[in-house]
Amino acid sequence: MSLGADLLEMGRKARAAAAELRSAPAEQRSAAIAAMARAIRESAEEILAANDEDMAAATSHLDRLRLDPQRLEAIAVALEQIAELPDPVGAEMARWQRPNGLDIARVRTPIGVIGMIYESRPNVTADAAAICLRSGNAIILRSGSEALRSSLAIHSALARGLVEAGLPEAAVQMVRTPDREAVGYLLRGLGETIDLIIPRGGRTLVERVQQDARVPVLGHLEGVCHTYVHAAADPEMAQEIVRNAKLRRVSVCGSTETLLIDRDAVSRLLPGIAAALDGCELRGDSEAQAIVAMKPATEADWRAEYLAPVLAIRTVDGVDEAVHHIATYGTGHTEAIVTEDAAAAERFLDQVDSAIVIWNASTQFADGGEFGFGAEIGIATGKLHARGPVGPEQLTTFKYVVRGTGQVRS
Amino acid sequence: MSLGADLLEMGRKARAAAAELRSAPAEQRSAAIAAMARAIRESAEEILAANDEDMAAATSHLDRLRLDPQRLEAIAVALEQIAELPDPVGAEMARWQRPNGLDIARVRTPIGVIGMIYESRPNVTADAAAICLRSGNAIILRSGSEALRSSLAIHSALARGLVEAGLPEAAVQMVRTPDREAVGYLLRGLGETIDLIIPRGGRTLVERVQQDARVPVLGHLEGVCHTYVHAAADPEMAQEIVRNAKLRRVSVCGSTETLLIDRDAVSRLLPGIAAALDGCELRGDSEAQAIVAMKPATEADWRAEYLAPVLAIRTVDGVDEAVHHIATYGTGHTEAIVTEDAAAAERFLDQVDSAIVIWNASTQFADGGEFGFGAEIGIATGKLHARGPVGPEQLTTFKYVVRGTGQVRS
Repeated sequence: MSLGADLLEMGRKARAAAAELRSAPAEQRSAAIAAMARAIRESAEEILAANDEDMAAATSHLDRLRLDPQRLEAIAVALEQIAELPDPVGAEMARWQRPNGLDIARVRTPIGVIGMIYESRPNVTADAAAICLRSGNAIILRSGSEALRSSLAIHSALARGLVEAGLPEAAVQMVRTPDREAVGYLLRGLGETIDLIIPRGGRTLVERVQQDARVPVLGHLEGVCHTYVHAAADPEMAQEIVRNAKLRRVSVCGSTETLLIDRDAVSRLLPGIAAALDGCELRGDSEAQAIVAMKPATEADWRAEYLAPVLAIRTVDGVDEAVHHIATYGTGHTEAIVTEDAAAAERFLDQVDSAIVIWNASTQFADGGEFGFGAEIGIATGKLHARGPVGPEQLTTFKYVVRGTGQVRS
Repeated sequence: MSLGADLLEMGRKARAAAAELRSAPAEQRSAAIAAMARAIRESAEEILAANDEDMAAATSHLDRLRLDPQRLEAIAVALEQIAELPDPVGAEMARWQRPNGLDIARVRTPIGVIGMIYESRPNVTADAAAICLRSGNAIILRSGSEALRSSLAIHSALARGLVEAGLPEAAVQMVRTPDREAVGYLLRGLGETIDLIIPRGGRTLVERVQQDARVPVLGHLEGVCHTYVHAAADPEMAQEIVRNAKLRRVSVCGSTETLLIDRDAVSRLLPGIAAALDGCELRGDSEAQAIVAMKPATEADWRAEYLAPVLAIRTVDGVDEAVHHIATYGTGHTEAIVTEDAAAAERFLDQVDSAIVIWNASTQFADGGEFGFGAEIGIATGKLHARGPVGPEQLTTFKYVVRGTGQVRS
């Protein structure tokens, strides 16, 4: 068969599997996820061997791609945790009666078939499959070619887990070819069988998906996150928060890339903050440079997502200018204010239009686990459907269930 | 200026207006909607004169296009009702504490700028503007050319109402040219200023929008709705419901287009139902034709959205076959089952994957007003973001507001 016919067949199977998943009880889906964890452990040798081949062929992103026994065990443990999460499917979100006696309930339902397009992290294969099963969705996985051998090895373990629990193997399918044309087919929806595309990877991938998709996309852009140190910040708290927001892990999307600091406070607060950022390259505007020796920042720095120990620093004249800077340069991900002034904080929280806004804590809390969602497939930075951490609940939709006693409309 | 430059400028103004609306209190937005209603009444003469010109130039859809003093008064009354609706902006949808003391709230926020592309109903101009203001969104309206004079006259009344209430005129803007190229610009998002496109009109319009849009679309396809008369239906209730579902108003998207009826019950129930459908053309499969004289239905009838006094009738072998027919031919809008058998009803409600599923009531209840939403901008048949009637609450998104006391992530 041609690639296109192959993929359309995959879409049809996914649609049929989604119909089965719709009526599979929560316990059965939990059992399948737990069986997938066991199968991953049992297949450790094959998976690590496949990963060795991927590593031998790869030229970049070696750390993201690498699996070892510890990382594989972490994948299995993550699956076990997802198996224990509360099941969102069927939950009543609201229920009310109308004056004519109609009983209306808003009930969570699976979205259907999700197409996941990702790059070189093989753990996404298992995480995404388990979160989709937890939310009653079928998934079609398209791994980056660098990680394809590892992902296929993980996928065959997942398939065994599904079969063991009596669920259709087609609930979790994987595109077996590295052919880039496959992505185009997925983005066109495989004959209306895909309900939602989730891209996970660098900006180039996400932008291509958003440009070419003919089905809805839940965008996971990386973040240009800001921490704003207000004039009324507690100096010690500001140092702790900025250091953590920037340096705890520089490669995560919730890490702070730009520090905004009040003009009134820059001479008082910046030296302590700079000292706390030991090992971090600073790039500032002229006012920041006048206080602490650092490289000059250019316009490009305000838009930069460094994912590295580099921080841009800009002085601003109060909350409104900070909000304006964020509206101009931010990516709608996560922004924090550090201040003891509650009114200033509430104005910032109200005015900043990002998925997550934080008062007096680190932007690195932008994470489904830290929010209590148990697991996440990524952070959505668009405004539609889901925003912020995307866990099982965010991968559901709803329907209205109306129960009557013969009502007709007048 | 060129059309493109004009429209980009419109997008920039809308974005600025959206930022102002974000902090405009609910009372001010209510006052603006009430002032818009007054301005519509004061401008009745100009609006009706503009509508006369549209009517004189039009060759089709004359009833949709026509305004008269009663219809104009109905538009003003609808605005007054929207002015009184509860305001969704700022509502806390959920709030919880994490073990580390972080306080996380999920708060409703406006989406931002909405692009509304519609056809020949001039009342949509006022309704859509008011629902968007109620939900804190700016709107760019693109009326079909047939209704453009009427819509522009209504729009200038709306603009006066905004100014009177101290809100930016750019909160509600209208494309002033009938040039069809304008739609293309809107669908490409006007330089990332449009957050969401809502098409409202026939299938051709909606499909073009879904095909060409580079920003999210909230699709309002019309509905191929089903009523399924189960073998355990109360005969009289089945007659009442089917008659109402088909004939109350044949032109609304919630009207039933196909009747499914159990094979076991067709000889017992169909004669009474057919008698209740006086004046309606019936088209049935061979088993229906054997019971009641009617035209044969073809494959095309199962997909037909008649919006006319025509009903397709198909016999099925129980709930699962009814569900399968709906999955194959339905549009995901609204489907009803009539039965006294609670287990059969619950299976149908669970298995049918449509925005609205109904037990023992008419499909014509598919309406935001009937659901208690106060107003609707349409019925969404996609699965993402909003599904079913789209009222003010469905035109919001949310953000997470996190309040800390200096927490950093370990």
